[in-house]
Amino acid sequence: MKAYIISIGDELLIGQVVNTNASWIAQQLELCNIKVERILSIPDQHNVIINTLQWAENNTDVILVTGGLGPTKDDITKKAIANFLNVDLITHTPSLQNVINYFTKRSLPISEVNKQQALVPNGCTVFVNNVGTAPTMWIEKNNSIIISMPGVPFEMKWVMTNHIIPKLLQIQQHKQSNDIIIHKTILTYGIGESFLSDLIEQWELALPKHFKLAYLPNAGSVRLRITANANTPAVHYEMQQQIDALKQLISPYIYGYDTQTLPQVISILLNEKGKTLSTAESCTGGLLSNNIVSQSGASNYYFGGVVCYNNEVKSKELNIPIQIINEHGAVSEEVAKQMATNCRNKFNTDYAISITGISGPNSDNHNTPVGTVWIAIAANNITTTQQYLFLTTREQHQQRCVNQALFNLFKLLQEA
Amino acid sequence: MKAYIISIGDELLIGQVVNTNASWIAQQLELCNIKVERILSIPDQHNVIINTLQWAENNTDVILVTGGLGPTKDDITKKAIANFLNVDLITHTPSLQNVINYFTKRSLPISEVNKQQALVPNGCTVFVNNVGTAPTMWIEKNNSIIISMPGVPFEMKWVMTNHIIPKLLQIQQHKQSNDIIIHKTILTYGIGESFLSDLIEQWELALPKHFKLAYLPNAGSVRLRITANANTPAVHYEMQQQIDALKQLISPYIYGYDTQTLPQVISILLNEKGKTLSTAESCTGGLLSNNIVSQSGASNYYFGGVVCYNNEVKSKELNIPIQIINEHGAVSEEVAKQMATNCRNKFNTDYAISITGISGPNSDNHNTPVGTVWIAIAANNITTTQQYLFLTTREQHQQRCVNQALFNLFKLLQEA
Repeated sequence: MKAYIISIGDELLIGQVVNTNASWIAQQLELCNIKVERILSIPDQHNVIINTLQWAENNTDVILVTGGLGPTKDDITKKAIANFLNVDLITHTPSLQNVINYFTKRSLPISEVNKQQALVPNGCTVFVNNVGTAPTMWIEKNNSIIISMPGVPFEMKWVMTNHIIPKLLQIQQHKQSNDIIIHKTILTYGIGESFLSDLIEQWELALPKHFKLAYLPNAGSVRLRITANANTPAVHYEMQQQIDALKQLISPYIYGYDTQTLPQVISILLNEKGKTLSTAESCTGGLLSNNIVSQSGASNYYFGGVVCYNNEVKSKELNIPIQIINEHGAVSEEVAKQMATNCRNKFNTDYAISITGISGPNSDNHNTPVGTVWIAIAANNITTTQQYLFLTTREQHQQRCVNQALFNLFKLLQEA
Repeated sequence: MKAYIISIGDELLIGQVVNTNASWIAQQLELCNIKVERILSIPDQHNVIINTLQWAENNTDVILVTGGLGPTKDDITKKAIANFLNVDLITHTPSLQNVINYFTKRSLPISEVNKQQALVPNGCTVFVNNVGTAPTMWIEKNNSIIISMPGVPFEMKWVMTNHIIPKLLQIQQHKQSNDIIIHKTILTYGIGESFLSDLIEQWELALPKHFKLAYLPNAGSVRLRITANANTPAVHYEMQQQIDALKQLISPYIYGYDTQTLPQVISILLNEKGKTLSTAESCTGGLLSNNIVSQSGASNYYFGGVVCYNNEVKSKELNIPIQIINEHGAVSEEVAKQMATNCRNKFNTDYAISITGISGPNSDNHNTPVGTVWIAIAANNITTTQQYLFLTTREQHQQRCVNQALFNLFKLLQEA
């Protein structure tokens, strides 16, 4: 099956909101072997919504629409869909009851606009919203399915997970598909796209015709996505062989596969080895620790951290003599080293990571180049340090530093 | 002028990458009064790229394309554009020199694929990439402009800022525009969309016909965007009057305007008042401090923080007796209060914020409901605490806690 994702909302077209819904939906459909061929954002305009639905209906099997279902006057998706279908809006009683329950539970008054959330185009299948008030509509028209969901991310995710995906999978099972595509992604760190391309050139040139390779660089990482047309049962085996061959060429740079992340692979290794971790951050101001605790269950191995955003805090909280900081500068090998070593002692963990750098836009009073960072990792009896220069924006710099620190720890844990 | 944004890349259609480029470009065009009417993601397919360019050329003035310009074999945008224009690819000498300089500066070898980055469709205007290797192409065809930029966000941003926007603004000046649209966004926190709608109902109903209102809810905040068709010179004055009237109705909830953020308005207030801040975080694991240091110059007012991800760290680093934690639970009013008070003393700041809660998916050993959070702010002589229940995902919960904490500090600073 093929799909289009259509996001409705002026806020998307003026860039006020990043369309994370579309990428999340695309991910889910990918897992269901439904091929997304277009992702489109359109304004809250009656005629544009109708024309877009018409175009999508003529070109694809499943049309997933988000947005425009809110209680306020700017939300017009339901009216446009009713018009497109040439039907009236009617009250869906279970959705009305859901709206009433929602407000009663929270001891909030119910207004007329809230009740209107229960209106739906006549004749569609309705999924009551267990985590909000706007219901989801499932419409079958000619050979297409149109699904209209709330734009609030966690409401959309809830209805996708609990209703839409199971129903799509059921339909998918009844269809014979001639174009099953399989994917495998190899996650690398610390090597640029073109160097990677050189390293694997012979392998890439020898790839069978039904295999395709894509390079996805981001913040120091390059993801290699291998796609294969899986019409034959042998292709899964073939994919594994290709990956094994690729691993031989680039193993020092690989940290994971598919949807894994650096915090996740570190979480796995720390849990496996029963080791613990703490952090001391300057320029990244908590981003490292927040990346670490993105993993549920991080408290098993992560004890805590210090954000030392000025020199006094570095000195007082991490026991670094102020003259050391003044002499070497806060962004220096010596300070990074003492940050990590003393952090490890302070929190009594097996490992401690420190980051001290200049994310910019301004330099420090030692004229250290903007973009410089020192990363140290303290382990049993040894603290290793490394200097980097990441020439990029403030925000991107912080993420680069964190990724590099996590990758360095990953290598250390792997070798341990 | 009107515009379409077209993002090329299979990675977008399988949800592997969130399309932040499109929203950033849309924001910039909005500032230039160029109206984005569609944002579209399409696969790396020769015929799809050509058909999409054809469709866009027939429907809009400016077509901004990102992606598919990398050095590797999966990048086919340039070939497709050359085909669309019916011209050859030729080497652009300054871009070739740039590629050579780029690799020489970094002491890296140059491969053939890297040199091919200097190929461009014959006849287009080329902007050399000062922050990378892929040049940008500007093509005028019939009445449309096609701009093909790298997909790497900071390279795209660099060329947009330094070349594309100035050039578009120049063209814009020579055109008479009949549909200048002005926007103003009011940022509110702590009141739901439908309650806000009730509060301002009379005002909204009385809005002149050339005004439009949109509600944009996100993580506890609702942004109210007022749009007006600015054909008459009086409309700016009228906009201000409408905003003044709106402020009367919802002032306790307003924290800023337009592109402002909570960390930014707090930064302004702390700087104005010469006050300092520290943080003590449990469940948010550094997200609060990282939000604070998102502001360049944060070191003027932010000293540092502690991430205390287990009870021993809370006890040892923040001087909270372990029996208090055991008795009340780590997620309790008492612990939040001591975290903030002791953090303020430890870092010797004017204010300290603490957050302790359960982001889920699992509860603690006190059966505290998942989603519960205590937020405390310590100021001179008084520490205030407040409990919340945010029923949402782990990631969203952390951001809700941080937003609430920042909003509480904002209110306190405003009143101080």
